[in-house]
Amino acid sequence: MAKVRVDAFSISIDGFGAGPRQSLEHPLGAGGPALHDWAWTTRTFQQRIHGRDGGATGADDDFAARSFENVGAWILGRNMFGPIRGPWPDESWKGWWGDNPPFHVPVFVLTHHPRQTIVMQGGTTFQFVTDGIHAALEQAAASAGGKDVRIGGGVATVHQYLHARLIDEMHIAISPTLLGSGERLFEGINLVALGYHCTERVATPNATHLVLVR
Amino acid sequence: MAKVRVDAFSISIDGFGAGPRQSLEHPLGAGGPALHDWAWTTRTFQQRIHGRDGGATGADDDFAARSFENVGAWILGRNMFGPIRGPWPDESWKGWWGDNPPFHVPVFVLTHHPRQTIVMQGGTTFQFVTDGIHAALEQAAASAGGKDVRIGGGVATVHQYLHARLIDEMHIAISPTLLGSGERLFEGINLVALGYHCTERVATPNATHLVLVR
Repeated sequence: MAKVRVDAFSISIDGFGAGPRQSLEHPLGAGGPALHDWAWTTRTFQQRIHGRDGGATGADDDFAARSFENVGAWILGRNMFGPIRGPWPDESWKGWWGDNPPFHVPVFVLTHHPRQTIVMQGGTTFQFVTDGIHAALEQAAASAGGKDVRIGGGVATVHQYLHARLIDEMHIAISPTLLGSGERLFEGINLVALGYHCTERVATPNATHLVLVR
Repeated sequence: MAKVRVDAFSISIDGFGAGPRQSLEHPLGAGGPALHDWAWTTRTFQQRIHGRDGGATGADDDFAARSFENVGAWILGRNMFGPIRGPWPDESWKGWWGDNPPFHVPVFVLTHHPRQTIVMQGGTTFQFVTDGIHAALEQAAASAGGKDVRIGGGVATVHQYLHARLIDEMHIAISPTLLGSGERLFEGINLVALGYHCTERVATPNATHLVLVR
């Protein structure tokens, strides 16, 4: 049965999923890129994000590769899609990822501000959902062709789906960095009350990978 | 120079340093003992806590052993000393650890309720400090004979010393367990603003050990 998943979600030692002060120059917030040091150099990320051959294999890459497997649609919070807040000033912003984004499937963006669907290269579409997380999940599941729906983030979006008890599985990577402030992934979340337990733990030199399942 | 240290402080994946509902039967709160699975079986803990030979060596034991090295005095919050709240009903409670506690040095217990010093076997004394964290640290440092002062916990006590910028070094162990609720070690704490960075990370099959230094 298709799942709703969070994958390759990196947090700091102090529990933050993004740094403070996201901006055009700092999509992951101040200090945020270090969260993903385990991922950048993997073969999967080199191919998916940079279109390059090579890159590291091993346990980090195994998790990176799994994060894209059997994903039929994505859901992103608006801040993960871009730095713009409030109404869309024009149609020019098309995500952080260039003309050929790494998704290659339909991506549903949660927003309060309607916008026309954007068709990108490589099979990615950005579709804007203004009627909430349940509607977005319904549309994503319908578009996923029986595959899983991946909740990409950010933290606020994951919180909403966690509180709604809609996430089946989460892969978290704890990176050896401190962010100090920002958005904490588990703030206000009782994972035990929500029924999660840890089914897998793999520690590499770069991160501690944990799989939480309910 | 002598340091003020936190050592072998275990937290869950979701950031809790103790489980909810501490009681006489559950000194570490519900689910809390699993936090310390990495430590219980080490040679150091077997000797220190149980007075037994044997136990596991390796990186977990190295951190366990370091946690006791060069410690000249401890500071504990009152809840780490025992389950009693409010005024001491009598003199009968002498800690969780039996007649020969694993400290073997002076231990200063933060409390609002004065009590006579308790002299235990093996060099441990419990001295009760009613005039706050700074007074406790002064007394502990004076008793430590040039060695370090270890802040044993719990979370609320560590928070107070962190906010007062009095902790030089922390060894944290992230255990592969979820607690769901309880006391979060880094709740309301900005480790970056306090000047900490991560100087060491060792992941074992049982825990991810991190050393934070300012």
